[in-house]
Amino acid sequence: MLDSRFYIPSDPISLGELIAPLEAQIADEKFSDEMIGAVAELAASQPGQISYLENKRHKDKLSTAKATACFVPEALASLVSAQHIVPIISKSPRAHFARVAARLVRPRIFTRESGAPEIAPSAKVHSTAIIGAQAQIGEDVEIGPYAIIGLGVKIGASSFIGAHSHIECAIIGEGCKIKPHAVIGGAGFGVARDENGILDIPHFGRVIIGDRVSIGSQSCVDRGQLGDTILGDDVKVDNLVQIAHNCTIGAGTVMAGHVGISGSVKVGRGVQLGGNVGLADHITVGDGASIAARAGVMHDVPAGEVWSGIPALPIREHMRMVSATRRLAKNPKKES
Amino acid sequence: MLDSRFYIPSDPISLGELIAPLEAQIADEKFSDEMIGAVAELAASQPGQISYLENKRHKDKLSTAKATACFVPEALASLVSAQHIVPIISKSPRAHFARVAARLVRPRIFTRESGAPEIAPSAKVHSTAIIGAQAQIGEDVEIGPYAIIGLGVKIGASSFIGAHSHIECAIIGEGCKIKPHAVIGGAGFGVARDENGILDIPHFGRVIIGDRVSIGSQSCVDRGQLGDTILGDDVKVDNLVQIAHNCTIGAGTVMAGHVGISGSVKVGRGVQLGGNVGLADHITVGDGASIAARAGVMHDVPAGEVWSGIPALPIREHMRMVSATRRLAKNPKKES
Amino acid sequence: MLDSRFYIPSDPISLGELIAPLEAQIADEKFSDEMIGAVAELAASQPGQISYLENKRHKDKLSTAKATACFVPEALASLVSAQHIVPIISKSPRAHFARVAARLVRPRIFTRESGAPEIAPSAKVHSTAIIGAQAQIGEDVEIGPYAIIGLGVKIGASSFIGAHSHIECAIIGEGCKIKPHAVIGGAGFGVARDENGILDIPHFGRVIIGDRVSIGSQSCVDRGQLGDTILGDDVKVDNLVQIAHNCTIGAGTVMAGHVGISGSVKVGRGVQLGGNVGLADHITVGDGASIAARAGVMHDVPAGEVWSGIPALPIREHMRMVSATRRLAKNPKKES
Repeated sequence: MLDSRFYIPSDPISLGELIAPLEAQIADEKFSDEMIGAVAELAASQPGQISYLENKRHKDKLSTAKATACFVPEALASLVSAQHIVPIISKSPRAHFARVAARLVRPRIFTRESGAPEIAPSAKVHSTAIIGAQAQIGEDVEIGPYAIIGLGVKIGASSFIGAHSHIECAIIGEGCKIKPHAVIGGAGFGVARDENGILDIPHFGRVIIGDRVSIGSQSCVDRGQLGDTILGDDVKVDNLVQIAHNCTIGAGTVMAGHVGISGSVKVGRGVQLGGNVGLADHITVGDGASIAARAGVMHDVPAGEVWSGIPALPIREHMRMVSATRRLAKNPKKES
Repeated sequence: MLDSRFYIPSDPISLGELIAPLEAQIADEKFSDEMIGAVAELAASQPGQISYLENKRHKDKLSTAKATACFVPEALASLVSAQHIVPIISKSPRAHFARVAARLVRPRIFTRESGAPEIAPSAKVHSTAIIGAQAQIGEDVEIGPYAIIGLGVKIGASSFIGAHSHIECAIIGEGCKIKPHAVIGGAGFGVARDENGILDIPHFGRVIIGDRVSIGSQSCVDRGQLGDTILGDDVKVDNLVQIAHNCTIGAGTVMAGHVGISGSVKVGRGVQLGGNVGLADHITVGDGASIAARAGVMHDVPAGEVWSGIPALPIREHMRMVSATRRLAKNPKKES
Repeated sequence: MLDSRFYIPSDPISLGELIAPLEAQIADEKFSDEMIGAVAELAASQPGQISYLENKRHKDKLSTAKATACFVPEALASLVSAQHIVPIISKSPRAHFARVAARLVRPRIFTRESGAPEIAPSAKVHSTAIIGAQAQIGEDVEIGPYAIIGLGVKIGASSFIGAHSHIECAIIGEGCKIKPHAVIGGAGFGVARDENGILDIPHFGRVIIGDRVSIGSQSCVDRGQLGDTILGDDVKVDNLVQIAHNCTIGAGTVMAGHVGISGSVKVGRGVQLGGNVGLADHITVGDGASIAARAGVMHDVPAGEVWSGIPALPIREHMRMVSATRRLAKNPKKES
């Protein structure tokens, strides 16, 4: 579901016209007049929308899909048509989806639309801050010089928005501290390739931030591709941290400087991430887990565990590996 | 000692009223009318101030402490009262201290106060730069567009302050180069928990920067919690570096991009930190030491030594470990 | 070659006067009246220019050098004079070169010169963006609030320049996306020491960016010292990335967040760099290579290979090392 505060759908267009610029074929040409008005994530898709399925691994998403059409590799087309969705045969389903998405949806740019923001009387907004149309600024909010609040963004009561910070496509809770030079709601990073070259995956989601969250200077929280990037209450983020698109971070989780969280990661509640920890995409870190500084986590971490190392392991295993290697280095003759 | 250029003390308040919102008890209620006007680091505390002691490890700080009151766990209360300081029994001394600190002290916000800055006639300040009240800008200083110089900040002669940079609660020496988008003097990162939840530790210290220091773009130097973060003369810092609260960096130390220095680290003079080096909190790196790129240092490094690896070791030991592991991988049969 | 759009040469000055403040000697005083008007990289140097040779390793550069004079350690002076270049004997050739460079060349600062920028009629420039004199802004370019485009910078058609971004000494292609808070063209990081202390190496090069390049928020692309930093077409860069001075990045290369590329690195076409990868200076990564997240690469990577680990190795070797160490840790008795 696109949030109309942030995105404008284009007029619906026929499937045939929509895919004409692409090397993609409608499985049965009789469907080329079907009208498409929006893009959607496959599992949540509705009639009139178009989606994509690139990998057999994600075929379960079809069970709830109601899209009108779906980019899909030839080998998976029958799975799609079995669901009464029109398969669009493509060698690059994700890239083709990204290209039509960029045509069907436009992000609202903060400087273009009229419509005054709603600013609570007790809010203190610096005269150089730029507040987009239809933004909602709560009671006692303070917004520093040269901050930019994008169109439709909502800032909850008593939040502090530091100087030079940049917020778009986001809903921020109450009592938050966004430090100077943070960037929240920027387009996530993703690249796809098709017969026309490389393209950036467009992002039509949001960032949803709970209450009493702190975000450090120079940190980035990217918005979701189609869904949202979500930070729970009391999440505390140090400087220079990257939280990528579609992540979910549980309440009370704390992360130190230079942490990097890849796309679609789920971090539980009350998790501790040490400095410069990296989390690979799509993994899950359970509630109350603790990841030591510098660890590079490539697999799911169970709740409550302490992991360390690159690639990360339960800390006891990692420490045993370090000790064994040290002993080995002291007695190199024995095993050579 | 709070620097009155950056912080405003509140009116003194009675101990009883101050701690009323907290689950903390004055050891002897007869002291509840003692007046408290400020917070202080324990070792340097003075009458009329309140401090905290969370861990037996830091009990030596009591020898010079003269605070009126001190948050302390029950088990350590007798150590505090032996020093003629009123113990406030608390299960969360650091968090409780942080909560009263936020009540007793307020940072001066650059946009609120009047009082023109002192700008030397030869300084070149871009018309869009914002210079806070009482700031002092030296001769031949150059300040770029959209830079923000907070209230009371001092910039030494011939320093260059890049566009979009953000400086608060800081004293900058002469001939410095602060590159575009650097953030100096932001509140450090620290989190504490008590019966009311998680809170950010407030920071009432400063950043003190020597002469001819360079700070890269997107780098952050956080101010101290109560004391100062100090960079000596000729310190050279690349882009995207994090220097946390209460660090001391010796003269002539050079650090490459993505270095992360945790809180209260002491780095000596003439130290070299390679790209993406990380230093754990409270450690010391001796004069002239050199840390190889990507190392994660968890222990003190003696002066003049070269360390590498994660966790970091003297480079020869680390190289021996790498070699031994490579041999092992080539002859796996021998030891399995 | 200095690009006159970004740098202003000073009036020529005699060799004797130029080096008078330094502890450096002209090999033969009869050359002290030679006039010097510019600095240059040794291999490309021309008459009237001064350069430096610090290390025997780079003596091949002399074969095409035509400089009038060259800072050089005493031991290498004869190599220089054999090339009909006046040797300037110095214990710190690089530092001395940097000191005279700062005297012979000045970067044009965006706020100083007059001369309106050329802005295409279809470009949309926010009223708060600052566009330097003689900058060229192409058709359909969009420039966000508080962005700074330096003097002489060229932005190709249909490029998007995000809010707060900072671009100087750069030529940007068509269809690029520079996200909010990116810094492009800042002075690179380099430090040299001589008898007068430590100094920053001045940078007189440029950043040249191809078409359809994306640069993430909080990322930095530094300009070259004397030559250029070059990004080919379709390079895609995530947030918080550092690309240092004089790097060359091939077309279609993609890099994830927190990547750090040191000075003078050559990255081929279609390379993949995972999150937080670090590349040591002066190395080469071949076309189509892939470097796993967190790897620290210290040596050249051949085309098409996949490397991982710190220090990085071909991934199969690295995985064997990890496996061998895990086995060892499980059976520590066997080898101790």
